[in-house]
Amino acid sequence: MKREIDYSLYLVTDRDLMSAPDLETAVERAVKGGCTLVQLREKTAGSREFFETAVRVKAVTDSYGVPLIINDRLDIALAADADGVHIGQDDLPADVARRLIGSGKILGVSASSLGEAEEAVCAGADYLGIGAMFATGTKTDADLATMDELRRIRRALSIPIVVIGGINQATAPSFRDIGIDGLAVVSAIIGAPDIEAASREMREVWDGFKR
Amino acid sequence: MKREIDYSLYLVTDRDLMSAPDLETAVERAVKGGCTLVQLREKTAGSREFFETAVRVKAVTDSYGVPLIINDRLDIALAADADGVHIGQDDLPADVARRLIGSGKILGVSASSLGEAEEAVCAGADYLGIGAMFATGTKTDADLATMDELRRIRRALSIPIVVIGGINQATAPSFRDIGIDGLAVVSAIIGAPDIEAASREMREVWDGFKR
Repeated sequence: MKREIDYSLYLVTDRDLMSAPDLETAVERAVKGGCTLVQLREKTAGSREFFETAVRVKAVTDSYGVPLIINDRLDIALAADADGVHIGQDDLPADVARRLIGSGKILGVSASSLGEAEEAVCAGADYLGIGAMFATGTKTDADLATMDELRRIRRALSIPIVVIGGINQATAPSFRDIGIDGLAVVSAIIGAPDIEAASREMREVWDGFKR
Repeated sequence: MKREIDYSLYLVTDRDLMSAPDLETAVERAVKGGCTLVQLREKTAGSREFFETAVRVKAVTDSYGVPLIINDRLDIALAADADGVHIGQDDLPADVARRLIGSGKILGVSASSLGEAEEAVCAGADYLGIGAMFATGTKTDADLATMDELRRIRRALSIPIVVIGGINQATAPSFRDIGIDGLAVVSAIIGAPDIEAASREMREVWDGFKR
């Protein structure tokens, strides 16, 4: 059974930026600070290492009742019994991903245009990651999404939307009145010297949207 | 339904060594020359590229009635509806792989010792790739398997066994009297100037074992 997801503050991991000694510690600190969802992204790990990392991180997210999403690798998501998978435009096609993971797991899809967003919805996505909103050092090959395109996507589609790519305390307030469902953050949390504090501060920015 | 597999001459692809213009052409030439099984191995491709390559190569192998096995990536094997997956000791654990692909697909496992081989059999492997039999340029991090260890594995286990790692026309004859089920070949076929001829010559070496 797919549970209701709180997309408010979505941590996306990046081992290279990480200020904590290991990923489990980094994730635990981020979740303690207020992250509501975690995506494990491993771009260089072999399959065994990725799988074992996913199992360890899931023990942490499970203990806090926060869903774990695996980036790209459906096989790792299935093997570790993660809550879902997040795919980009260079990963498996979204309709194939949906067929393989079934209806019980969360499918997130990256999109940078309304066309990609509509296609993802038709393929069965549960949420969209719209971006990159700003040029970012974490994903240099990412297509950029403009603020206008984000507004068009939000007006056209009712699916949950998180923004990603250069989201930090300085940039987040620009999304205040667009009606998004959450902020996806990489370096501003995982790369912060104090991950828990950075997570708490980002969470306060988000909570401020609702006042 | 899992079909009876002919392991006689098992092509493992390597894009970097390839003498043909594209993988489909290389695979077609190898199969025409006598390869009975094909493993698609892509160590640098992104998921979309790997998936699309697998679909194209499967169209070729299907047209010749030869099974296609995907290296490492279970999600690609499932997405492309390949005939099976081949995993190494650094990939997903074999028992997890078996659970995810079900009983209808072929599971191959690399092993370099009797201990690894026994574990793979218990986990539900359909065949073993034993090696690397010789130090090889295609997989520099591979553990080496000795001829004595290969003989021990063959005596202990009834599962189909192919040898891999440095198998070519010069080295293949040393396996004549060990009772293996096939030769797995990378560079000696895919890297040959004439892939079809190289495949035919390796096939003649193998067929010579039976006389």
